[in-house]
Amino acid sequence: MKTLKPTLVKGTRDFNTLQVSNRQYIADIIQNLYVRYGFSPLETPALENISTLSGQYGQEGEQLMFRVLNSGDFLAGVDPDAMHKGYKSLTAQIADKGLRYDLTVPLMRYVATHRHKLLFPFKRYQIQPVWRADRPQKGRYREFYQCDADVVGTPTLVSEAEILAMTYQLFAHLGIPDFVIQLNHRAILNGLMSHVADKVQATTFFTILDKFDKSGQAHVEAELLRAGFSAEALAQIQFIFNLPPTNAAKLATLQQHLQASEEGLRGLQELQKVLDYLSVMGLPSLPISLTPTLARGLSYYTGTIFEIKTAAVSMGSLGGGGRYNYIGIKEGAPSITGVGLSIGLDRLYAAMDTLDMLPERGPAPLQVMLTNLDPASEARGLRILTSLRAAGVRSEIYPVPSKLRQQMSYANKKRIPFVIIIGDTERAAHQLSVKEMRTGFQKQYTLRELIDMLT
Amino acid sequence: MKTLKPTLVKGTRDFNTLQVSNRQYIADIIQNLYVRYGFSPLETPALENISTLSGQYGQEGEQLMFRVLNSGDFLAGVDPDAMHKGYKSLTAQIADKGLRYDLTVPLMRYVATHRHKLLFPFKRYQIQPVWRADRPQKGRYREFYQCDADVVGTPTLVSEAEILAMTYQLFAHLGIPDFVIQLNHRAILNGLMSHVADKVQATTFFTILDKFDKSGQAHVEAELLRAGFSAEALAQIQFIFNLPPTNAAKLATLQQHLQASEEGLRGLQELQKVLDYLSVMGLPSLPISLTPTLARGLSYYTGTIFEIKTAAVSMGSLGGGGRYNYIGIKEGAPSITGVGLSIGLDRLYAAMDTLDMLPERGPAPLQVMLTNLDPASEARGLRILTSLRAAGVRSEIYPVPSKLRQQMSYANKKRIPFVIIIGDTERAAHQLSVKEMRTGFQKQYTLRELIDMLT
Repeated sequence: MKTLKPTLVKGTRDFNTLQVSNRQYIADIIQNLYVRYGFSPLETPALENISTLSGQYGQEGEQLMFRVLNSGDFLAGVDPDAMHKGYKSLTAQIADKGLRYDLTVPLMRYVATHRHKLLFPFKRYQIQPVWRADRPQKGRYREFYQCDADVVGTPTLVSEAEILAMTYQLFAHLGIPDFVIQLNHRAILNGLMSHVADKVQATTFFTILDKFDKSGQAHVEAELLRAGFSAEALAQIQFIFNLPPTNAAKLATLQQHLQASEEGLRGLQELQKVLDYLSVMGLPSLPISLTPTLARGLSYYTGTIFEIKTAAVSMGSLGGGGRYNYIGIKEGAPSITGVGLSIGLDRLYAAMDTLDMLPERGPAPLQVMLTNLDPASEARGLRILTSLRAAGVRSEIYPVPSKLRQQMSYANKKRIPFVIIIGDTERAAHQLSVKEMRTGFQKQYTLRELIDMLT
Repeated sequence: MKTLKPTLVKGTRDFNTLQVSNRQYIADIIQNLYVRYGFSPLETPALENISTLSGQYGQEGEQLMFRVLNSGDFLAGVDPDAMHKGYKSLTAQIADKGLRYDLTVPLMRYVATHRHKLLFPFKRYQIQPVWRADRPQKGRYREFYQCDADVVGTPTLVSEAEILAMTYQLFAHLGIPDFVIQLNHRAILNGLMSHVADKVQATTFFTILDKFDKSGQAHVEAELLRAGFSAEALAQIQFIFNLPPTNAAKLATLQQHLQASEEGLRGLQELQKVLDYLSVMGLPSLPISLTPTLARGLSYYTGTIFEIKTAAVSMGSLGGGGRYNYIGIKEGAPSITGVGLSIGLDRLYAAMDTLDMLPERGPAPLQVMLTNLDPASEARGLRILTSLRAAGVRSEIYPVPSKLRQQMSYANKKRIPFVIIIGDTERAAHQLSVKEMRTGFQKQYTLRELIDMLT
């Protein structure tokens, strides 16, 4: 094989044994919780058609989407002058596939395809990687895992309440300190929008508003003015930067200010209903904070919007979600509504790592190593190894005859608890000398006794 | 959201609940076996630099590799005339990343990067998808999972024997009928090559030879002649098409014909040694068949080569592997040797599906559904649901108040074994009416009794 220049693609990582094990530990907790709430697994391919992905994630999404070059002579049939028209025009002609950008759009594609066979409400969970050509930074990678759970096909706000309860349980179970679930509603954002001049785009407004949590009032106000907001419009919405602390008081204040917006009032009613459902469920005091500035990057939300954050680490959100509608495949077909939660496995891992909350040990290690002193002990070791493995004992033999000290050092580094030394004496006696590495204690066993001890 | 045109990328698939569950069933068996043999998990990113991938998989690999378009203005800095020079020249300039093509090259990249920190022999397993723009057909997809286990850093043939024993155990444990492990050695192929005119390329020779198993002697001979082989050269190697049945007899026949090739004889010796190790391990009669025509598509093998097939389904190999060397990152650094096994999860799944060997049921289903008859029963149901889930019971509530018959039909289709019906009577009595769906039997429980029964 040729000489390798061993570099990782920017923003991607390898996961060693301990990391795989710790990531699996978190993913298992999430998965078990999702199953307990009635979600079933789905997996979709990494590759999706650009026709499926494009137009779903806003302008940023179009830029950050990884596109896959068509196979074979991708220039066949392309206008030779296309290059001079710029890369965007060429892209559409030479790359008709892309990498999965989130798990929601593939879910929608799946539901749209199978809608006549699926049982609704369709509750699926999905734990798979997604890819975004984002600028890498702490907790943000170009290849990262999302853990999604969605309820598709019912408008009831019971689904919202269940998903928020599940979200709470997850973070409480993991023991993440000081976490809060910020909650908003697209109709509240639209109600606020109705206060401002219509020459300003809603998406611009929401995107700037969304920065309040991170950058503060002064920054957001300055940006709004720069974006073309009038000082009068700003005065109308300024109250959201200084809301009272409790959800009840926030709802009351918003109610006063959104009197003129039917849509805004509907949003408030729906959030009240979600909180009521949580009370009915016996969960009246979850760490939920009404946050009318919350918009999230994705443009497809139509109802509730929520995000999970912790003050314990300086990092973006650990997850979030909301309600969306999507339109069936046929013109005029009824839209299907869904509400979902997406947990960022890598963010959660980074947060738990920072907080020293990950399990210290990796996966179940080897139980036994057989030493290999010479061809005769190797032969006996190989025979014993077959029996140990057949009995389910995780075991291996040192691969080549070597000095005992070197083999002991290898076993120590791999934290193998028991080492079997097969010298001439042991061969003669049909006994195995078993050394417990932690104590240094050595004892004779028959093979049967050893298997009984280890299984 | 925009209207979706719901199509999958050619050669890719969605996996529904049952499929995810069955695939996990197979992957778990493989993983547990790998762990028992002392392999530890590693995961690498889907994206690799083209500089890592290119030149590793031969000409076919270069064609079938998925390349990812550079982000942003990928044409910046590209010679505007590059398009006229054809797509290959442009590819190199606009796509510097690709999708993982196998799991061996990423392993080598990982070892090359971490060689000074790793404990050798380094034994890793890896279960992840790979991508190839191959022509889709039965059991062959463009996105598929490989389950690899490799021993890196030791030349001992004990590793070969262990991997063959593990391969045998896997297929025996899964219950695949009539499987055989075909075994060859690169040095034997080279020895055969020494019989033929040197104007013919070795890779051409090996590629044609490899088709014997599938296409037969006449086809291979015709292709060899077409490729420029002389009839005399053909006569020299014709004996391999009519070898005796046992491995011992095959070895003897090959020994006679390869007397003049030092390399060929070394290959035979090594295979004999591997078989001897298996005898020592107490596994003298594994279904291993010496197959001197076996070459496999990948060009990087330097020692043993093997492949697993079953006559029970008409499908390509279910897995394979072999020994390879690779050269360190620095000029003149010693090469590192490895030997590995790669199981094709999708092939194995397809074979087991064809043979009706997959578990019938999906993952652990819901245990309980609560009916939702009116707002009052919904409220009580939600409260009970919180208790059930807190106790670990997999449960859900029908999401909206509806007719009982509709809810029962939903529970039936989801195979939920118990349904709790909360009507006025039950609310008054603080009792739960629990219907066992299989028998239709209905009984009163307190919440505590129900949880005790289900957990």
